[in-house]
Amino acid sequence: MSPDDFPWNRWSEERARRIESVIDRFLPPATEPPQRLHEAMRYAVLGGGKRVRAQLAYAAGELTGAEISIVDHAAAAVELVHAYSLIHDDLPCMDDDVLRRGKPTCHVAFGEAVALLAGDALQSFAFEALAGAALRDSGQAALVLAQAAGSRGMAGGQAIDLGCIDKALDLPELERMHRLKTGALIRAAVRLGADCGQAMDADENDALLRYALAIGLAFQVVDDVLDVEGTAQSLGKTAGKDAVQRKSTYVTLLGLAAARERIEALRVEAREALSPFGTRARRLEELAEWIVVRTH
Amino acid sequence: MSPDDFPWNRWSEERARRIESVIDRFLPPATEPPQRLHEAMRYAVLGGGKRVRAQLAYAAGELTGAEISIVDHAAAAVELVHAYSLIHDDLPCMDDDVLRRGKPTCHVAFGEAVALLAGDALQSFAFEALAGAALRDSGQAALVLAQAAGSRGMAGGQAIDLGCIDKALDLPELERMHRLKTGALIRAAVRLGADCGQAMDADENDALLRYALAIGLAFQVVDDVLDVEGTAQSLGKTAGKDAVQRKSTYVTLLGLAAARERIEALRVEAREALSPFGTRARRLEELAEWIVVRTH
Repeated sequence: MSPDDFPWNRWSEERARRIESVIDRFLPPATEPPQRLHEAMRYAVLGGGKRVRAQLAYAAGELTGAEISIVDHAAAAVELVHAYSLIHDDLPCMDDDVLRRGKPTCHVAFGEAVALLAGDALQSFAFEALAGAALRDSGQAALVLAQAAGSRGMAGGQAIDLGCIDKALDLPELERMHRLKTGALIRAAVRLGADCGQAMDADENDALLRYALAIGLAFQVVDDVLDVEGTAQSLGKTAGKDAVQRKSTYVTLLGLAAARERIEALRVEAREALSPFGTRARRLEELAEWIVVRTH
Repeated sequence: MSPDDFPWNRWSEERARRIESVIDRFLPPATEPPQRLHEAMRYAVLGGGKRVRAQLAYAAGELTGAEISIVDHAAAAVELVHAYSLIHDDLPCMDDDVLRRGKPTCHVAFGEAVALLAGDALQSFAFEALAGAALRDSGQAALVLAQAAGSRGMAGGQAIDLGCIDKALDLPELERMHRLKTGALIRAAVRLGADCGQAMDADENDALLRYALAIGLAFQVVDDVLDVEGTAQSLGKTAGKDAVQRKSTYVTLLGLAAARERIEALRVEAREALSPFGTRARRLEELAEWIVVRTH
């Protein structure tokens, strides 16, 4: 079954379009000075990407009956953090990548200094977008986002990743790295989206966290498989980089077949975590399926 | 009169020591993985700096009768944003500076990639520190900090500054740049500190903003004067860089004498803005004096 056959595709596409227009509306216009900075910020965030994090926020908001106009802020915030991290990741002192989503990376298009500042400003802007939401506890929301982005979250995962090139990680180390590098922001997306609606009890919070942990990891294992199988064209970025950099991946550590089994086990885990929620969790369940079957 | 003669010096020193220990306590220990990242974050923030922004937050907190343990969070947040911006400013793609506060800059000590991430993580951590404060409206506080740091604040000012090397700015352009680059965070420091205590009325908020605008600008004019007159030893950073880079400064645009007159006028403006507050504004007044007479 290809991802295009999924019945939820329309919802997913609609949400991807929605977040695009939300972020477009939130961001300063490219005509506002300093223009070059605002152009670079918009270039890096708009016009592409799977918007997985935004979709997770919207799906979690449906779980708790949140107003979509409130979830817009949470969804934008996680996408903005994600976009800033990609700009900085691609810089010459990091991955030194020239292609992202099929376009020249931000520093190739705008120069390193402007790209650096665009990333910095997008991080600030993520907190600004989140602060605009009418939440029960916006201080708590800022805390969730800050922890997900910081040294005990995404940036920490990046730092571990930096130390790993040309150094073999074992599986627990690899998982710890991914739990921070991509997992933390995915968990925050689910959590912030859910927090836009009705409060949940402790068991429900736990279940939702288990779901987010499973799909966060699944997302990464799928990425590793795609890096081996994909082409630059289907990925919109340079393929096979992991092998060139001799990074440990799920595929190098487990082999392709076992990596696929791991994905399947995580899919089951995610589905089971959602079972107490019934149909309210429909969109979250569909997203878990999509993460697993996506081919690009 | 030298700065050491000021009667408020003890308060100021006590607050500078306090924020050092507050940030030391807030930050993850250097022993916590990823160690290298946490070391770099601590290296860049701790052990130096004038802590002007923290002191302004504490002084504004005294104006509104705030509990000092709450102001700790606001003061830490602005210092963390400032520290992150210095790391990124010093990077090779920006100012390419090797000396800061008399020590090797963060990327010289830890490498560019770690320095980049340390700056990124310190920005996240600033929002985390702020979210820890028991404020009337922590969503509003996050918004104030985010706007001060972002493309309509500090990062925007940096971007304008980037475009200015080898290009002569006129005085209004120079002021606009500084109002963003350093002024925005100074205004946020005063505002966030004040917001830790009793709410003020609209007139009081206006007066406090006028104070913050005046000292923010004064701070920059003093910096320009010091760049001409200072030595690397007294500044703890490379002196005379503005001239080498042929940047417009208050000194190149106005001349030294008129720049000094401007400082004096801003000092008077700041003092007048505070007059409705009486003795509650004592610390803010003393800080305005200090900003003007400081020699390093």
